[in-house]
Amino acid sequence: MKSFNQLIEELKKLKSGLFAKDFLLTWDKTEDELRQTLLVAEALKHLRDQNISAKVFDSGLAISNFRDNSTRTRFSFASACNLLGLEVQDLDETKSQIAHGETVRETANMISFLTDIIGIRDDMFLGEGNTYMKEVGDALDDGFRHGVLPQRPGIVNLQCDIDHPTQSMADLLHLVNYYGGLENLKGKKIAMTWAYSPSYGKPLSVPQGIIGLMTRFGMEVDLAYPEGYTLIPEVVEMAGKQAAVSGGKFRVVNSMDEAFKNADIVYPKSWAPFAVMQRRTDLLKKSDKEGLKSLEQECLANNARFKDWECTEEKMKLTKGGKALYMHCLPADISDISCKEGEVAASVFERYRIETYKEAGYKPYVIAAMILNNKFGNTAEVLEGLYKAGKKRVM
Amino acid sequence: MKSFNQLIEELKKLKSGLFAKDFLLTWDKTEDELRQTLLVAEALKHLRDQNISAKVFDSGLAISNFRDNSTRTRFSFASACNLLGLEVQDLDETKSQIAHGETVRETANMISFLTDIIGIRDDMFLGEGNTYMKEVGDALDDGFRHGVLPQRPGIVNLQCDIDHPTQSMADLLHLVNYYGGLENLKGKKIAMTWAYSPSYGKPLSVPQGIIGLMTRFGMEVDLAYPEGYTLIPEVVEMAGKQAAVSGGKFRVVNSMDEAFKNADIVYPKSWAPFAVMQRRTDLLKKSDKEGLKSLEQECLANNARFKDWECTEEKMKLTKGGKALYMHCLPADISDISCKEGEVAASVFERYRIETYKEAGYKPYVIAAMILNNKFGNTAEVLEGLYKAGKKRVM
Amino acid sequence: MKSFNQLIEELKKLKSGLFAKDFLLTWDKTEDELRQTLLVAEALKHLRDQNISAKVFDSGLAISNFRDNSTRTRFSFASACNLLGLEVQDLDETKSQIAHGETVRETANMISFLTDIIGIRDDMFLGEGNTYMKEVGDALDDGFRHGVLPQRPGIVNLQCDIDHPTQSMADLLHLVNYYGGLENLKGKKIAMTWAYSPSYGKPLSVPQGIIGLMTRFGMEVDLAYPEGYTLIPEVVEMAGKQAAVSGGKFRVVNSMDEAFKNADIVYPKSWAPFAVMQRRTDLLKKSDKEGLKSLEQECLANNARFKDWECTEEKMKLTKGGKALYMHCLPADISDISCKEGEVAASVFERYRIETYKEAGYKPYVIAAMILNNKFGNTAEVLEGLYKAGKKRVM
Repeated sequence: MKSFNQLIEELKKLKSGLFAKDFLLTWDKTEDELRQTLLVAEALKHLRDQNISAKVFDSGLAISNFRDNSTRTRFSFASACNLLGLEVQDLDETKSQIAHGETVRETANMISFLTDIIGIRDDMFLGEGNTYMKEVGDALDDGFRHGVLPQRPGIVNLQCDIDHPTQSMADLLHLVNYYGGLENLKGKKIAMTWAYSPSYGKPLSVPQGIIGLMTRFGMEVDLAYPEGYTLIPEVVEMAGKQAAVSGGKFRVVNSMDEAFKNADIVYPKSWAPFAVMQRRTDLLKKSDKEGLKSLEQECLANNARFKDWECTEEKMKLTKGGKALYMHCLPADISDISCKEGEVAASVFERYRIETYKEAGYKPYVIAAMILNNKFGNTAEVLEGLYKAGKKRVM
Repeated sequence: MKSFNQLIEELKKLKSGLFAKDFLLTWDKTEDELRQTLLVAEALKHLRDQNISAKVFDSGLAISNFRDNSTRTRFSFASACNLLGLEVQDLDETKSQIAHGETVRETANMISFLTDIIGIRDDMFLGEGNTYMKEVGDALDDGFRHGVLPQRPGIVNLQCDIDHPTQSMADLLHLVNYYGGLENLKGKKIAMTWAYSPSYGKPLSVPQGIIGLMTRFGMEVDLAYPEGYTLIPEVVEMAGKQAAVSGGKFRVVNSMDEAFKNADIVYPKSWAPFAVMQRRTDLLKKSDKEGLKSLEQECLANNARFKDWECTEEKMKLTKGGKALYMHCLPADISDISCKEGEVAASVFERYRIETYKEAGYKPYVIAAMILNNKFGNTAEVLEGLYKAGKKRVM
Repeated sequence: MKSFNQLIEELKKLKSGLFAKDFLLTWDKTEDELRQTLLVAEALKHLRDQNISAKVFDSGLAISNFRDNSTRTRFSFASACNLLGLEVQDLDETKSQIAHGETVRETANMISFLTDIIGIRDDMFLGEGNTYMKEVGDALDDGFRHGVLPQRPGIVNLQCDIDHPTQSMADLLHLVNYYGGLENLKGKKIAMTWAYSPSYGKPLSVPQGIIGLMTRFGMEVDLAYPEGYTLIPEVVEMAGKQAAVSGGKFRVVNSMDEAFKNADIVYPKSWAPFAVMQRRTDLLKKSDKEGLKSLEQECLANNARFKDWECTEEKMKLTKGGKALYMHCLPADISDISCKEGEVAASVFERYRIETYKEAGYKPYVIAAMILNNKFGNTAEVLEGLYKAGKKRVM
């Protein structure tokens, strides 16, 4: 692990346009900007591990807007905001008047008069979540430009229909620390593969986020799924192009075994096919409960044809030296534990359980880094200032 | 806009009894006290705009008790408390044991041991909301007097059945800034008028708050509504008396056109007739769902007779130079946007949209001012102290 | 009341192993540890009463996990955390993905990356609540040991199926102040008695907590209930042993009068019989709504046989000089106030109402003391440091 000073030195060399820009998709960011996010996250972790306060805000609100359930991301966001000195207020749309016909444009301004950051999760509707975030962003631009808002709150995407950048960046930071450096990921093979789950309708944002990010750093990325379980085509296409640019590889295969073969890292996780998500989105919009029920039945039946897409000990033997790193965004569907047949065998999961926890543990720092980079143009100096001030977090 | 020092100088000249007094109705406050609230709100805005911390509390709780839905007031209260250093805890009556038969007196004390301020919204039942706030206040007095509470938490009315002081004071501060001074409001005509809305049962507190406040400063206040859409009679009577004292005017008319004629400011907003609210309150208390449904039908049908009570471009032409300032507490029912036919034409609303956002933007500072005045006897000195200390809000 | 310096001097003499230990049951703690909790609570109250900041955390999360409704404990926990500088985040299991099959082990880690303390209420299921807390504790140990968590969050039991230590310790602190010292409790008689209530299914944790704590300090403890209304047998047995060790007395009687006779303190409170709680737990686990309904009927009918178990003026005359101190954890079922026939006569309750409020007022400080003792090995020095720094809580 690098020293605090090393991190700061590396930070100072980067060119970045993260200041005052929302963090919605990793592929909208330059490689330097992604590196900066990782370095700032690590530096913030250093500070906290050394009991040094990272409170850059004396006061200020951070708004969380969860349009879907969440535990780990909710607490990661709360932890990140608290670390920096912001107080989280939840925009709970059942308690608010949003249902009463308020437009997004108006609400975005009404909650933002003294707000520094807004975190949004909106992953239920294909074609909607990311669009909503951009709408909120436009509304904030409008309010800021017209003097309504004394500051332009930054937006952090806490999972949308397209990407899950706080997850994929935490995953990447885990890999950086696991392999001792971002440069060491070059040439490593990662298998992002579909896996069987007894549930259905899981978002596409995690696999899309992984192939959209890991192809940036010269990795060999295999995307594997049973025929039909495609992702958003544009994202897949983009992943291929990115791999070419970064000197990596990207291919799509329809065999879990094929993807696992000689892999350094495996990421077996269920998702719903793109086409199903489109139909589901239409049905949800129409509140067609009957249609949703029958789609669920159809989809579960189809899933059941692929129960052999499970990350078993057998399959793990196919990986490099039989010792690939297992990853998951959690919670995983663990066979015989959380369900009868699931994404991963209990023994495999248990062997990597602590690693998956560590993987998750980077998320608060990744989110805090996204906030810091959004609100400060000179994060290296800000971090140095905190380090020198050395104010204790716990007395 | 006045300089910070000017605000402080003006503040020092005022006589005020706001310290340790709840802020429930604007008409319980002297003119000096209202001026102080405006000045302190502006001074707090100055501090924040100059990135100076206004954190006067190192720790302490602020309790929000929303007995009706809210977005903007909820976030305004949260923002105000956070600005001053208080942490908001929501008294959610569905999660608490209040339903289990606790009396108000007891609960008020139980939540207040380390509490500095309580914000309450209770606007559903005529004759209940304000009474509830006073009951809470009495309970806190009792607890403080007997040594149960180490401090007497102040109460801020975040909307009751009678008044909506944080709204009306924010509206007033908007006018002060729009016209360049409170003294410039003298002689200005404001039309507080009913407007058509496809919904029903909207509280009376906004129109009552407006006529109860704007008649204090020599304005010419027209209250307009279709026959039968009366407000609480005592409030209307009081508004007339206040206008006489302040050198302004107050009249009630049954024509929107009449009210708009030569108006400097128009405030078109729907509300339910006083008599309907009384019947509704009785039905709500009895949980008479059938009765409520038929009252709603009756009321909507009656409303529909007055669809021409809409703030259209036509009507705006009647105002002074056709350029009256449009105001609204938001969210407005905008024709063709949030509903087919509503309170205001889309083009009128859009022209004044940013102004209504600015209007709303004063609310956090007005609430913070109410809190500061309640907790400190010497707000001018407190504000000067903060200014001199010059602690940065954002590092 | 002792001076701050006296409290610190006494603290320094105690031997304590509270550091880094969860506070789950008072009977797991030594007498010195209980004394330390009381002293630290009093010292924190001193600081706040003198407007001195007790903020030992610059940032950090405190998680509240309420698996049953709560008002007073919820706000006490929030107050305690805020006093020390921690921000409360509620783990709301309806909003989280816990229902989706996450194991406790995983969730405990996922929410704890930057968390210093976790408060849990889980009192609905006999044999479950305390077990759950220990499970969470084990999970945190596991995560901390493996480097997942940079700190091991402490756990405070905010009421389980067995004990309610924040309540019983607040009750004890009330007695200490009422009688002028812990040593003065020696020989005092306390009647912990069942009382009639029109509700059913009230937890056993309060009476168990009281007999489990008050028998530690040489008090004469009478536990009284109608035949069949037993508590968990092991707890009752333990209370007897503790009384013997501390030089006190403990007996179980089936008469309220008998218990009240010559009592210095009475604590009349309803609870459900142990056997009923066992059946209820089984039915709850099976979600057997019919079974629950008929159990409730049976139990209410049985309760109704004991309506004379009411703390009346008559009964109060039996106590020492007719002037026993009445205690209750609140809310009490007050006859003619909160119900037709209840635990206590209105006139008795009203006479002691302020005392019961004061009793409740110690809870925030008791919780804060539990947190401080858990996170700092040298609380005497920490408190002295705060006192000397003398930072104002309110400017």
